Amino acid sequence: MKRFMLLVFALSSVVVFATCLAAESTDPLPSWNNGAIKQAIIAFVQTTTDKSNPKFVPPAERIATFDQDGTLWVEHPMYSQVVYCLDRLPAVVKAKPELAKVEPFKTVLSGNREAIAKLSMDDLFKILAATLTGMSIDKFRAEAQKWLDTAKNPRWNRPYTELTYLPMEELLKYLRANGYKTWIVTGSGQDFVRVYSERIYGIPPEQVVGTANGTKYGYHQDGKPFLTKEPRLLLNNNGAGKPEGIHLMIGRRPYAAFGNSTGDRQMLEYTKAGDGVRLAMLVLHDDAKREYAYGPALGLPDAKVGKFTQALYDEAKKQGWIVISMKRDWKRIFNFKSQ
Amino acid sequence: MKRFMLLVFALSSVVVFATCLAAESTDPLPSWNNGAIKQAIIAFVQTTTDKSNPKFVPPAERIATFDQDGTLWVEHPMYSQVVYCLDRLPAVVKAKPELAKVEPFKTVLSGNREAIAKLSMDDLFKILAATLTGMSIDKFRAEAQKWLDTAKNPRWNRPYTELTYLPMEELLKYLRANGYKTWIVTGSGQDFVRVYSERIYGIPPEQVVGTANGTKYGYHQDGKPFLTKEPRLLLNNNGAGKPEGIHLMIGRRPYAAFGNSTGDRQMLEYTKAGDGVRLAMLVLHDDAKREYAYGPALGLPDAKVGKFTQALYDEAKKQGWIVISMKRDWKRIFNFKSQ
Repeated sequence: MKRFMLLVFALSSVVVFATCLAAESTDPLPSWNNGAIKQAIIAFVQTTTDKSNPKFVPPAERIATFDQDGTLWVEHPMYSQVVYCLDRLPAVVKAKPELAKVEPFKTVLSGNREAIAKLSMDDLFKILAATLTGMSIDKFRAEAQKWLDTAKNPRWNRPYTELTYLPMEELLKYLRANGYKTWIVTGSGQDFVRVYSERIYGIPPEQVVGTANGTKYGYHQDGKPFLTKEPRLLLNNNGAGKPEGIHLMIGRRPYAAFGNSTGDRQMLEYTKAGDGVRLAMLVLHDDAKREYAYGPALGLPDAKVGKFTQALYDEAKKQGWIVISMKRDWKRIFNFKSQ
Repeated sequence: MKRFMLLVFALSSVVVFATCLAAESTDPLPSWNNGAIKQAIIAFVQTTTDKSNPKFVPPAERIATFDQDGTLWVEHPMYSQVVYCLDRLPAVVKAKPELAKVEPFKTVLSGNREAIAKLSMDDLFKILAATLTGMSIDKFRAEAQKWLDTAKNPRWNRPYTELTYLPMEELLKYLRANGYKTWIVTGSGQDFVRVYSERIYGIPPEQVVGTANGTKYGYHQDGKPFLTKEPRLLLNNNGAGKPEGIHLMIGRRPYAAFGNSTGDRQMLEYTKAGDGVRLAMLVLHDDAKREYAYGPALGLPDAKVGKFTQALYDEAKKQGWIVISMKRDWKRIFNFKSQ
């Protein structure tokens, strides 16, 4: 009997050892090319989750925040939410025909792409307000879902929700597997991103911080309560608004933050200003062939989206933020087989 | 060898079976008296977590929201946050002596309890703004923590953080053990409650929704960024503000909601208006001996805190909200041994 038990013990040990080996040899980030960037991510995770390391971070404090447009999915040449709003405008104008006669709606309805591309931020805000507010949150969700199910990005001829970056999906999963709570912190509308964040990123609605308007509580005729989306801006979650939004919705400073533009500068700054080891990373869009290349940091013309200025590039170097080159660091860009 | 393995298998089965029995016979709510209320809670949890039940709720959607003052801890005769603000006022006036000459600060500094008790809501807002804003969030946290560590409730001569209701602590744990994410949804200040929520309720800061002011991002002289608490109100998280706050911060409708006053009416209404099984409960303070008895629903004078009006009582009956009687349903009120 004793010998049998020893045998069982020995066999179990072999199994456990083999499992450990297998786990160690499984690459958590297979779509990332080996190199300094991938190593920096792995070192950060190992350091902060190793109890014997003085830089260990307790599980409850493991917060990682991700910008969305240009960081988790394609933003060029136009944010998906803006495409959605432009697509929705005809239906809005049908319900309120007086809008067709005033700017900026007149320009959008003209279909003149050059003129649409020149619309100012103020114009865009008017379009967002007209298309995203003044309806119940249930109706908003249903409309957005319908669009996501049918609309396609013209370059790849695929739903927008398939244009997520595979390396970043792996990074989200890797962080979560190591006890990090992953959050989206986006300049896009909180309600819009929440419609798909759980399905495409595994990030639940309560972990999406975005630009948010107020809602108003009221009652249907049958007495059932509902919330109406109002044009009143509560949180402009961009630039300095990102740390403010993080404080409002999370209440802790992130240990890791990921962005791709000047709108993420303060979030990265705020993250790095904390104690211990903090990770701040910026995605540089320098892959014209597989995705896009744009921005002054590459000597290219400024884009309407995701400004990556020379100043941001310089600050990244100075502050120890890590710049991810899509071209150099990502083995694959998307999950679909087009590459 | 075969016989030995059979024996191991048989023994393991006994152990597993015994463990199951032990688990089944462990009461998850030992401080609740047996009866309809306790049964209703257990039935709700069993129904929504049983995969074979048509009312099953997927884990991701299991959201339970709790009012704090009067629902999770003592609110009478004054909300703890108000006590904190009144306690802090002398230090604030020392830094800004001009306040001593104007109302409502003059009244508070006079120490005249009757006059203080008569202050209006507007006056209270002025006191909250003066004592809770205009400082960095780090400084605010340190000050609040210092107060919590030293201040004592005069009736029980214990720190305020010990005046939590044991039956509600058990309920929080029971829900969490069954996959529910527990949230505080309070009219008190979000930042204030976040200082202690994790330690005393096991609820992390990111699951505290409270009345919230804006913050402003800025820099210390050494270039380090910080957030300043501003008097600008973002979310008045009371009454209709509770469903609005839930939408802003959670983005899903709760399956269970717990309150104790008219300020929780809309949260309970919104919760119950969802599909499937939803649980809405109100704590009635009817135990003058072990805690307090107050409110018109008991034929008692109205209190400054936690209004439980006759209208609320009637609506609870009509809507199927369950009223918890502290006197009848709670075996023990507190964790400490004074009863």
